[in-house]
Amino acid sequence: MLRVAVAGVRGRMGALAKTTVEAADDMVFAGGLARGDDLGDLIDRERPDVLIDLTTQPDSVAISTLALERGVPSVIGSSGWTVAQREALAELSNRMGVGAILVPNFAIGAVLMMRFAEAAARFFPTAEIVELHHDKKKDAPSGTSLVTAERIEARSGMTVPIHSVRLRGLVAHQEVLFGGDGETLTIRHDSLSRDSFVPGMLAALRAVRGLHELAVGLDAII
Amino acid sequence: MLRVAVAGVRGRMGALAKTTVEAADDMVFAGGLARGDDLGDLIDRERPDVLIDLTTQPDSVAISTLALERGVPSVIGSSGWTVAQREALAELSNRMGVGAILVPNFAIGAVLMMRFAEAAARFFPTAEIVELHHDKKKDAPSGTSLVTAERIEARSGMTVPIHSVRLRGLVAHQEVLFGGDGETLTIRHDSLSRDSFVPGMLAALRAVRGLHELAVGLDAII
Amino acid sequence: MLRVAVAGVRGRMGALAKTTVEAADDMVFAGGLARGDDLGDLIDRERPDVLIDLTTQPDSVAISTLALERGVPSVIGSSGWTVAQREALAELSNRMGVGAILVPNFAIGAVLMMRFAEAAARFFPTAEIVELHHDKKKDAPSGTSLVTAERIEARSGMTVPIHSVRLRGLVAHQEVLFGGDGETLTIRHDSLSRDSFVPGMLAALRAVRGLHELAVGLDAII
Amino acid sequence: MLRVAVAGVRGRMGALAKTTVEAADDMVFAGGLARGDDLGDLIDRERPDVLIDLTTQPDSVAISTLALERGVPSVIGSSGWTVAQREALAELSNRMGVGAILVPNFAIGAVLMMRFAEAAARFFPTAEIVELHHDKKKDAPSGTSLVTAERIEARSGMTVPIHSVRLRGLVAHQEVLFGGDGETLTIRHDSLSRDSFVPGMLAALRAVRGLHELAVGLDAII
Repeated sequence: MLRVAVAGVRGRMGALAKTTVEAADDMVFAGGLARGDDLGDLIDRERPDVLIDLTTQPDSVAISTLALERGVPSVIGSSGWTVAQREALAELSNRMGVGAILVPNFAIGAVLMMRFAEAAARFFPTAEIVELHHDKKKDAPSGTSLVTAERIEARSGMTVPIHSVRLRGLVAHQEVLFGGDGETLTIRHDSLSRDSFVPGMLAALRAVRGLHELAVGLDAII
Repeated sequence: MLRVAVAGVRGRMGALAKTTVEAADDMVFAGGLARGDDLGDLIDRERPDVLIDLTTQPDSVAISTLALERGVPSVIGSSGWTVAQREALAELSNRMGVGAILVPNFAIGAVLMMRFAEAAARFFPTAEIVELHHDKKKDAPSGTSLVTAERIEARSGMTVPIHSVRLRGLVAHQEVLFGGDGETLTIRHDSLSRDSFVPGMLAALRAVRGLHELAVGLDAII
Repeated sequence: MLRVAVAGVRGRMGALAKTTVEAADDMVFAGGLARGDDLGDLIDRERPDVLIDLTTQPDSVAISTLALERGVPSVIGSSGWTVAQREALAELSNRMGVGAILVPNFAIGAVLMMRFAEAAARFFPTAEIVELHHDKKKDAPSGTSLVTAERIEARSGMTVPIHSVRLRGLVAHQEVLFGGDGETLTIRHDSLSRDSFVPGMLAALRAVRGLHELAVGLDAII
Repeated sequence: MLRVAVAGVRGRMGALAKTTVEAADDMVFAGGLARGDDLGDLIDRERPDVLIDLTTQPDSVAISTLALERGVPSVIGSSGWTVAQREALAELSNRMGVGAILVPNFAIGAVLMMRFAEAAARFFPTAEIVELHHDKKKDAPSGTSLVTAERIEARSGMTVPIHSVRLRGLVAHQEVLFGGDGETLTIRHDSLSRDSFVPGMLAALRAVRGLHELAVGLDAII
């Protein structure tokens, strides 16, 4: 049985992680971390096999760093990591030989959208990302759109503009548009409920102990 | 037979206007104005019943103003009019009793999109416009998107953001998104060829002599 | 205070109606009807001012008919009424002078979609409806798509094909496509949660006592 | 210089192929075949290195078969091949060691759409294809949609419904929808002009001599 601790357990994503772990046959919930709690204490007390970090910044950097230092493989669902922070985490993960996976989006459809966008990049001269979320979402652009743009840009000479729509009634959606002479290719992901995060969350939790460095995205494991 | 002069006759829209006029049973092509030509001369020589102005700025303001001063009703297809310029034109049209119609978009579908967007405005708390064009289009946002936003805002308390996508392979497209609790309503117009401008152009040319003030959009006449 | 009885109170739409009524300042929940209950008894006991019927067929026809015969104005949210059944209901409503309103879709965006589709009908030579729902929806085509097609067809010479997509992960969506030379106009409604039904439900309950014949769709009252 | 013969040279696709060949630095137009012409004569007279067949059925089967029998590698752009005809062609190509490539769609975006659809197939429980074309297109479903469905079905247990929309104003579009719990993934290709076919046509002509059996789709070569 995989003992799973959940950081950010009082948030909506954290609550989903707790429910998901409790419903899984091969997992046990090994404690939740809320704001003000001490992660060191939790690790000493519950001895989790893995941690899933669903806090926001600046907490996420501190929590994930401590978890790796203590040898606890971590699935990190928070966005807002700077390049420098990510590099430091990669270095730490590598040095300790403790796996970590940074997951901008747990939905399988989002993972495929990013993978296909990267694969299409070299065939088109122009691209743009439009990400659309409910009007309560505070940050823009979304973590997923930033990673998508980065992956397209790394494969091509393009600069990929990102546009963020915030509109009542929306949930979480992203469209990647590619344009060439006389044609366009559009890859769109619609996340209509948090149910879409469950399979990816389970896959990440099961895989992270087998990693020995930092992976970015579920791509590494599905 | 309606005698129609075409300003901007060497541009793509001007060429379409010339072809359209020549193909119409009830119209005669009464001269084309290219850059450097004198509109006064053309009016003296050809005595057009109406003018269709498909130039860009700053030419359009000068040409349309002179046409109205000379008593020639004008269909104006150019965008880029400031509010002050439009008001001056309205005042001139009214004072002279000579009709003019400012048409941000000749496609019937675009006219309906604007009409429906205006009608939907009071039922939703949030709205946004995304307009998408080929990557050769220089100006942004498009004239149609500006008029659409203006009409939505006039009917509601909302501020309507406009986002412009410029992408190879696109033609001319606009999406108006409305969001309310648990739902969205999207009105989208796709203009895939200039054929879509012909019926609206003909309707405007036939109607403008019957107007005695400035009309904005084809709404006034269909 | 408006006394509202709810038929089909154990279904998801019925439960939403009960919650909505209980949360409204000007309404009181006046009893729920579940399968096997007797509507006559409920009317005698609770004396509702209006009924909202959210059952499925064949129950809905029987319940709405009895409610009108007993003088209780009814909001009917069920689909699956045949033309003959609807005509009989209209005749009964008219003869009794008791209002009824048949609402294929309580979402305001859906009402506007149908209204705009009807208004666009005479400007385009071709049209098609694609309605998309989750794969648990049993009936096809949806009630909303049938009413939309009917309204477009009544305004034009067109026959409007309806296509039904049933796919995991979807909620309730409809797209009306109009095509003309060189252009298309698309009106799309996405209903992502039942929250979207609340305002229309309240509006229908408040308005139905003021009607004295059968109205179809929320159009009559918004 | 690659000598290219074009079958169906009087059709729109054939005319595009002729223009494309004439504009390419490494190709020479080696005769066009129109209805009633004899392919054997053309081969004797022009000695083409490759043939591109853009006829319709039943001509395409006869022409492509004869070309292979005569040792001329063939790019086949026609749809409407039955499974049995395709198998016979594959057997002939293999036996003769003469390459052939059956291309349901020359647009690079369509090739990627099919590739991504195939790759997504095993991650979702439900899928559907909607293909949309102008109302002059006679056949339905499109060749591209049939190949897409076949490739998805081969990778999963799903049956993939195909819906065909025929609407004035459209050009050539296809949408592949995948649905899972709480999410959908949509891959859409829009072909807005025949310009989109040029790069794929050139790539197929250059590659077909290097093949020694039947390839289906541009996937084999890009």
